[in-house]
Amino acid sequence: MKFEIKNRDAAGRICKFTTEHGTVTTPNLMPVINPNKMIISPREMKNLFGTEIIITNSYIIKKNKKLREKALEIGVHKLIDFDGPIMTDSGTFQSYVYGDIKLDPIEIVKFQRDIGSDIGTILDIFGTPQQTKTKAKLGIKETVKRAQQSIHEKGDMILACTVQGSIYPDLRNKCAKELSKIDSDFFPIGGVVPLMENQRYSDLIACILASKKGLNPSKPVHLFGAGHPLIFPLAVALGCDFFDSSAYAKYAKGGRMIFPWGTEKLDDLDELPCCCPICTKITAPELKKLKEDEKILELAKHNLYVSFAELKKIRSAIAEGNLWELVERRASSNPYLFESMRELRKIDNKRWLEQSESISKNKALFYTGNHTIHRPIIYRYHKRLIERYERFFDISIVFPEGNKPYSNYYSEQIGEINRKRNDVEILINSHFGPVPTELDEMYPFSQSVFPKTLDKETEEEISKIFDNFTRDREIIFWEGNRTLQKLSEPQDKIKYDRDILRISAVANMQFGKDASKALFDGETKIIKSKKTGKIRNIYCDEKHTLSMRASDGMFTLKIDGAKFLHQHFKYPRLRVTIEKDAVSFIKQGKSVFSKFVLDCDPELRPFDECLIVDEKDELIAVGRCLLNRSEMLSFNYGMAVKTRDSIV
Amino acid sequence: MKFEIKNRDAAGRICKFTTEHGTVTTPNLMPVINPNKMIISPREMKNLFGTEIIITNSYIIKKNKKLREKALEIGVHKLIDFDGPIMTDSGTFQSYVYGDIKLDPIEIVKFQRDIGSDIGTILDIFGTPQQTKTKAKLGIKETVKRAQQSIHEKGDMILACTVQGSIYPDLRNKCAKELSKIDSDFFPIGGVVPLMENQRYSDLIACILASKKGLNPSKPVHLFGAGHPLIFPLAVALGCDFFDSSAYAKYAKGGRMIFPWGTEKLDDLDELPCCCPICTKITAPELKKLKEDEKILELAKHNLYVSFAELKKIRSAIAEGNLWELVERRASSNPYLFESMRELRKIDNKRWLEQSESISKNKALFYTGNHTIHRPIIYRYHKRLIERYERFFDISIVFPEGNKPYSNYYSEQIGEINRKRNDVEILINSHFGPVPTELDEMYPFSQSVFPKTLDKETEEEISKIFDNFTRDREIIFWEGNRTLQKLSEPQDKIKYDRDILRISAVANMQFGKDASKALFDGETKIIKSKKTGKIRNIYCDEKHTLSMRASDGMFTLKIDGAKFLHQHFKYPRLRVTIEKDAVSFIKQGKSVFSKFVLDCDPELRPFDECLIVDEKDELIAVGRCLLNRSEMLSFNYGMAVKTRDSIV
Repeated sequence: MKFEIKNRDAAGRICKFTTEHGTVTTPNLMPVINPNKMIISPREMKNLFGTEIIITNSYIIKKNKKLREKALEIGVHKLIDFDGPIMTDSGTFQSYVYGDIKLDPIEIVKFQRDIGSDIGTILDIFGTPQQTKTKAKLGIKETVKRAQQSIHEKGDMILACTVQGSIYPDLRNKCAKELSKIDSDFFPIGGVVPLMENQRYSDLIACILASKKGLNPSKPVHLFGAGHPLIFPLAVALGCDFFDSSAYAKYAKGGRMIFPWGTEKLDDLDELPCCCPICTKITAPELKKLKEDEKILELAKHNLYVSFAELKKIRSAIAEGNLWELVERRASSNPYLFESMRELRKIDNKRWLEQSESISKNKALFYTGNHTIHRPIIYRYHKRLIERYERFFDISIVFPEGNKPYSNYYSEQIGEINRKRNDVEILINSHFGPVPTELDEMYPFSQSVFPKTLDKETEEEISKIFDNFTRDREIIFWEGNRTLQKLSEPQDKIKYDRDILRISAVANMQFGKDASKALFDGETKIIKSKKTGKIRNIYCDEKHTLSMRASDGMFTLKIDGAKFLHQHFKYPRLRVTIEKDAVSFIKQGKSVFSKFVLDCDPELRPFDECLIVDEKDELIAVGRCLLNRSEMLSFNYGMAVKTRDSIV
Repeated sequence: MKFEIKNRDAAGRICKFTTEHGTVTTPNLMPVINPNKMIISPREMKNLFGTEIIITNSYIIKKNKKLREKALEIGVHKLIDFDGPIMTDSGTFQSYVYGDIKLDPIEIVKFQRDIGSDIGTILDIFGTPQQTKTKAKLGIKETVKRAQQSIHEKGDMILACTVQGSIYPDLRNKCAKELSKIDSDFFPIGGVVPLMENQRYSDLIACILASKKGLNPSKPVHLFGAGHPLIFPLAVALGCDFFDSSAYAKYAKGGRMIFPWGTEKLDDLDELPCCCPICTKITAPELKKLKEDEKILELAKHNLYVSFAELKKIRSAIAEGNLWELVERRASSNPYLFESMRELRKIDNKRWLEQSESISKNKALFYTGNHTIHRPIIYRYHKRLIERYERFFDISIVFPEGNKPYSNYYSEQIGEINRKRNDVEILINSHFGPVPTELDEMYPFSQSVFPKTLDKETEEEISKIFDNFTRDREIIFWEGNRTLQKLSEPQDKIKYDRDILRISAVANMQFGKDASKALFDGETKIIKSKKTGKIRNIYCDEKHTLSMRASDGMFTLKIDGAKFLHQHFKYPRLRVTIEKDAVSFIKQGKSVFSKFVLDCDPELRPFDECLIVDEKDELIAVGRCLLNRSEMLSFNYGMAVKTRDSIV
């Protein structure tokens, strides 16, 4: 198995997942194929929906003599006529639904191996939401035991070890950690179907997050039994890579149509509210009149068109960097989902999500409602403001939210203030909370769209943060001339340079506290764009140390800048440490692959600038991280750092 | 022209619009056809997207000698090869874009008539958003003058008289009223393209509402130049019936794809986030590689598939009664649109929207965020609670929000309270504000889905309403036994019957203050469902007066109930007055058509029960309104009241 990150947003990722039957782009959906009765054949699914991977049930195959013998003879791929990767389920869900089904946990793994399944599943113990913690504990103990036993029988098959633990996050986390110790490559999160059926999305989120926190981040995670697109964006944002859908067929049989915003009964519809190839070629009355079998077929196709399109939408959102927007938009379709988003506000969850959050994104940040302010990137900003932002002055002059960038919008007023005295902090009481003008071009302040009027919940949230940031300080809300008159003459007559303040502030926020001391200690020269007047390049003692990106107002680190930071900051700050063997490749400008990473600063985030060092902490190169620390240390495939410049 | 309401939700409606070239279901979209250069022919549009009506430009046809002569010879339908209804534009937009284009306002109307346009447009004066009020006034004066002159030249053509007035709601309203005096059948709202281009949606809403308030409700309204589906749901909810799209072509030429949530550049996309027939048969890289012409064609098709699907979605939402949910969901796609929803909170707008709001709906009310509490149906509830709900007791015992219906959820506690004393009001401090338990089965209280935790903005809003409803009263928040102990013995020992309280409360809320006195004055017998225990039928003095609907907890009025209400309430309360000629038909059980309605209680709302009376206020029948007063009095086609029972 190969599993490699290609792109990312939130804790979601676009990966390439490869078995010997081919490569799948994740997040992706495995339609469930019933070997006894296929509504649509896997081959047709590939043609119509671009289906790349399917799942079938080894228990159903094994139970039926004819199917069993045929599967053992020709293999599962030929049995169901699909040449791409095939996952098999073990019968766990059947034992949950039908009770004891007499199945040997090891036999069923061997059987999956013997019929040539790409991914076989252990016979885990389905933990129901209503079970006691004691029972759930016993369940995960048995599940882990079976996984440990099964691993020896997997052969070349990928063994899917399912995380259980009912609705107890600590058990989920424990189970995930135990399973991660096993040499397994695929982790479903199981026992969640009853949560989805009862729209207990807060519990679902808690289960996913607790499991993900315990799992090895380099392994694919499958939200077992999740087939409704309503939940896909959120589940992907939390780090799920695979879904499986029997819903497409089950719903079709019940005359129900799947939509990204929920489910509709065909009988309730006068028109088909969809643009898929089915809904554009037939009308609702025509569809209702079809013979039962044909109707089920058309509904199943519709359900799969919509489900696969939602995955395209999600992958697109990851690539564009607006997955959170999609998640929040979906949440407004369903009050239970809307409610569940509050689970993400818990500090532990914010902390965990922040680690995967990219430094900046391609697309502007869009406000969607009262969940927006709790996004990990805004949490990060507030945290860094307290931890990294250096304050020089005791007085803050505060402006209200305005057009962006703020320092342009308020340039006249700032000019007037500076002429009177320039040893004051100029702060925007913005929709993000307090933003010093020096930071106003950094992502996401300039690159965001908010309504003029905030909802009161967000307002309260940011005013708490504003109060916290400005307490014990002198605060002056800007009132034009009156404010200027109020301002006393400065005590010292030092001229503060707003450009220097800006590059210092950005450097500290981006590289960490005191980065400005490392970077701007010598004679600093700032080169601005003639066209836009914006800072473009920075030289220190005639060395080109940094350039500022127009797109997100952050620094690109030059090798000379890297040297200053390396000298100033102790190990492991800003470092990615690579193996001896990789040094010469990196020096040639090649990028850093995960498998060569020995260590990494835990504070580095995806798309952060970093120092590439060898085992002796000698600076080799400078680059841009694609992964965070835990990812770099766990992935065996793919790039960890894109090298920009190396020391020859 | 025939224009007839078939279904409705919010101020939106599904109508049949008929010209001599066929019938169009509205809301609908007219693709703009450039007679010089069609990307997709109207005939193909009909096949692919079910296009029912198109719009082309008479100015462009007239300007070109060859087109002009051909159009005059064979007519516009043959010229562009489309046999359905065709609207023509007049050149107003061209004169806005290109300045003075030398066009005689009467000549262009005559020309449209002569080429056989179904709907021709006056040459109105485009009011830009930045013009002064004085200039806007002159503009509407000239527009109205031209409309008055043009009407004499229209022949059999429907003349579209465009409402202008820049961003001044009073001018919009004035223009709409002036134009409504003319014998015109079609009203575009013009001058809005710059508002949409600059995402000034609050101004757009203000313009639409001001225009709609001035227009005859029985005439179709066309939001001129609106072609992006982002705005469709909101515009329909405010009463727009037609859109026109040149966007499909313009965006395609710019390599841009239209989606319900906004626009994406093809070049930015790795995958096509859509399930339309184009996006499911081709990948993003393949689409990018097509020759320019083919690419434009495919993008244009995608744009139209998505636009027409959005209209199907909207019509579906109207039929299901969840258009507001769709509007609010869309608002979360775009912060400017989100902001603009606050325009609907203005009391004048709430009042106007409430008039069109149905009494109850097929689907449960879904909370989507902080806009939900401001829906017209909730505004109506709060208004009626103050105006119609009769209070018998001085003490209110208050329970927090719980499962629905509340009286089931709190049945034990209510039982305990009743045993102690039953002359208290039992109130739920619900997500809707205060709900007396007697009303808890009425739409939308039982038929609604809210998250457990409300956003703070909604919380503040409903707590204001709660405080208003309970001030100057004794309020006891339920604390179990402690509350029971606190309750003193009642002063009088009358036994209040909670069932009688319930039917009285529902009757008053539904039929108006004191309706209970009319309906339950005699010996009242309540029949409950044996299965559910819920109230089903009510007899007064052995006459079957009312039945209670299980679906929305409201009353269906029987003829004997109608007699009591008729006797008790003076004209025009609850009445729909019909012409003499229609009486015998109604007595045969036929429904009431709008053209026979002489008068109507201004308080009646769509789906309200009503008394059908003749000119002498004699009760003829009982029925259910499909329209409100202003609609009944203005529509010439279609049903106004569905008759249920008549007095033979």
